[in-house]
Amino acid sequence: MARTRVVIIGGGFGGLNAARAFAGADVEVLLIDRTNHHLFQPLLYQVATTSLAPSEITAPIRWVLRKQKNVTTLLGTVERIDRRNRSVHVKGEVDPIHYDYLIVATGTRHAYFGRPEWETWAPGLKNVEDARRIRKRFLLAFERAEWEEDPAARQALLTFVVVGGGPTGVELAGVLPEMCRVAFRPDFRRIDTGRVRVILVEGGTRILPAFPPALSARAQRDLERLGVEVRTATMVTEIDEQGVVLGGGERILSQSVFWAAGNAASPLGATLDVPLERTGRVLVEPDLSLPGDPRVFVIGDLSAAALPGGGYVPSVAPAANQMGQHAAANILRLVRGAPSQPFRYFNKGDLATIGRHKAVASFGGGRIQMAGYFAWFMWLFIHIAYLIGFRNRLSVMLQWAYNYLFFERGVRLITETEDASMSRHPATIGRTGEFEARSAAAKAADAGQGGAR
Amino acid sequence: MARTRVVIIGGGFGGLNAARAFAGADVEVLLIDRTNHHLFQPLLYQVATTSLAPSEITAPIRWVLRKQKNVTTLLGTVERIDRRNRSVHVKGEVDPIHYDYLIVATGTRHAYFGRPEWETWAPGLKNVEDARRIRKRFLLAFERAEWEEDPAARQALLTFVVVGGGPTGVELAGVLPEMCRVAFRPDFRRIDTGRVRVILVEGGTRILPAFPPALSARAQRDLERLGVEVRTATMVTEIDEQGVVLGGGERILSQSVFWAAGNAASPLGATLDVPLERTGRVLVEPDLSLPGDPRVFVIGDLSAAALPGGGYVPSVAPAANQMGQHAAANILRLVRGAPSQPFRYFNKGDLATIGRHKAVASFGGGRIQMAGYFAWFMWLFIHIAYLIGFRNRLSVMLQWAYNYLFFERGVRLITETEDASMSRHPATIGRTGEFEARSAAAKAADAGQGGAR
Repeated sequence: MARTRVVIIGGGFGGLNAARAFAGADVEVLLIDRTNHHLFQPLLYQVATTSLAPSEITAPIRWVLRKQKNVTTLLGTVERIDRRNRSVHVKGEVDPIHYDYLIVATGTRHAYFGRPEWETWAPGLKNVEDARRIRKRFLLAFERAEWEEDPAARQALLTFVVVGGGPTGVELAGVLPEMCRVAFRPDFRRIDTGRVRVILVEGGTRILPAFPPALSARAQRDLERLGVEVRTATMVTEIDEQGVVLGGGERILSQSVFWAAGNAASPLGATLDVPLERTGRVLVEPDLSLPGDPRVFVIGDLSAAALPGGGYVPSVAPAANQMGQHAAANILRLVRGAPSQPFRYFNKGDLATIGRHKAVASFGGGRIQMAGYFAWFMWLFIHIAYLIGFRNRLSVMLQWAYNYLFFERGVRLITETEDASMSRHPATIGRTGEFEARSAAAKAADAGQGGAR
Repeated sequence: MARTRVVIIGGGFGGLNAARAFAGADVEVLLIDRTNHHLFQPLLYQVATTSLAPSEITAPIRWVLRKQKNVTTLLGTVERIDRRNRSVHVKGEVDPIHYDYLIVATGTRHAYFGRPEWETWAPGLKNVEDARRIRKRFLLAFERAEWEEDPAARQALLTFVVVGGGPTGVELAGVLPEMCRVAFRPDFRRIDTGRVRVILVEGGTRILPAFPPALSARAQRDLERLGVEVRTATMVTEIDEQGVVLGGGERILSQSVFWAAGNAASPLGATLDVPLERTGRVLVEPDLSLPGDPRVFVIGDLSAAALPGGGYVPSVAPAANQMGQHAAANILRLVRGAPSQPFRYFNKGDLATIGRHKAVASFGGGRIQMAGYFAWFMWLFIHIAYLIGFRNRLSVMLQWAYNYLFFERGVRLITETEDASMSRHPATIGRTGEFEARSAAAKAADAGQGGAR
């Protein structure tokens, strides 16, 4: 008899853990992903802020699964799922790919609350290309500021706005001030890195809303101590080439706005032809399958799995891991004629790091709360332990140790040269000797709150 | 009195060493580069072949020069040099930048002997983007081959042609066979990595023409033992989407042709308005300045500096280093009213590595020749010693040790997803159970020399 074919779409935490859960089972697994690598997304902000290289938080999916001989990997973009014919359609392919069971784990992209044009000015952070884009923007801001004569324009280049006070926004904002003030200081001649402004904007009443209120307050205090301006209960009403406009009408001039505010489910969910939750996530049965279709499972960030106490399983990596394992186990149950089991989410707790050696942690639904140095060590340990692949783990550990000891920011590549020529006024240094003089003048003007204008 | 202003264009080996040679001198130095990083080009082929990450062989120019307070760095593209007004024009800037002394060190790009359209099919290897492009092409060839049913098409995907038998071509070709056969083998289910073909094409009568003939022969033997087909005295007459056509009319079907054959000087040389050598290099005086203009020096690969015995100083990193130091010393002489001195090239010898633990080395104009394991160790030591920046040196050493011991190829990112969906026939695996059967059939067909066609 032919072996059962399981197709998994997506090689993130959910998809990869599902594939692994089939190890040794008598099924054949096909894993399809748009890229060739698994990404350890919780550390992506460290790529965006030059601490880690993309290769240090990624691993080729083929390599991760190389020993599991019942898994085959396909690099391709799935455009549509045809449940009636039990097949998926891959871009550029005429014939669809058949499945007996299907696991959909394509996650989310950032969403701009109906303002997609904001993406131009406020890139989000979901994949390696996003992180490279943010890194480039961040580095170019400094390159331009170094040669900007106009104090207001220079300040706009040194003002960084992070929109969204969840873990990604907090981690991004927390890392920027010391990187600018400590790591970059010796490299620039004319910038006063002490003038760097980092503003974290959150629409809700507190940052890190998934944490207990006391930890939100602690995180805000820690951020403010690092020099981050935290604005809660503040909506962003406009983003353009000048910067952002806040709810009260205040305009913040900034050339570097980063988006960490909203997610929308992968559009593949809509091709399943089932009811979706408000943000596009797929409403699944207790066993994670589709209503009325026990052959299709939806897991990870794309899945809206109801929690017993109301709400849905949160969109975090541990939940995706658990769902991947559970969906695989259910498929194996169905294959051998047993009924599928409902998914039970085990909340391992929440962790978010703040700057270079602080974090907040909440376990047991807030019964255990931690903050500060020890929480940071725990964050570090857990992240290294989960990083897939010995090589990456070792390399990241060394890199972090090095960064921590020497405060270097090593991965500062700007490789595309076309739009790199953006310094505004090198002409003004066109005469011999004006160099230091101007530099001093610029600093004096700065000290006078931009009074030179 | 205003300090003398030296402008250096280019942050490669020549430009960077010139800047360093001004340490402590009473001049102000402005270094302009199109990118923000110095690239250790001799190891670029290891990025192209997935052994190293771009960040491991680059260092931010600002960071390298952070302690030298008389150097300022500008990210920008110089479009034109105006010697009459002693100024350089940066792209996007209205006003030119003034210089008292100028050092031009913008190097070369690859040249296609009047066939620029070949670049589409045969990318060259000069900068980080080039290396990423080659890496992506190389990895995609395997991804596609895994799903290609047609034996001839699959063989074309597993056939790699390297054009040019200089050190870059030899190093690239030498690394491909074992990477494919050893490192990639466990990751692919359907490819017989033993069918990988690597062909090195050289127009001259022997590879590594800068080395003594005995070492060329040894290198060729070593390459052939690794499984590389070496074709000397063979011209490439055509390159297109199908592969290459060789001088005798033979067509080699290949989806991965890499170009390491020709260089052309940076077009900036032509804006100097002085006589150029055949390949566009600038003919310089014995002191490396321009004929009739003692304020402008041209160094590195862009410079055609005559050797006493005829010919020019070779386009290698040690020569660029020496020229950079010499030009800086000459400028300091001129500043204090002393005459400039002629440049004398000290040939430190030639080194090229072949595969994983072999190399050839020639010193003292060929009086000392080495090959094999010891030469490889020397190659390793010298390259690590020259790598700029402690961090990179340590990281590369660890990476190499790891690769060597575990035979992993870690840096396998394909990040752009748009054209990644190129597998040809997953449709044919659309029915349950056909999977292994087809795979076996494909291998049988292969064994029969593609007899299934």
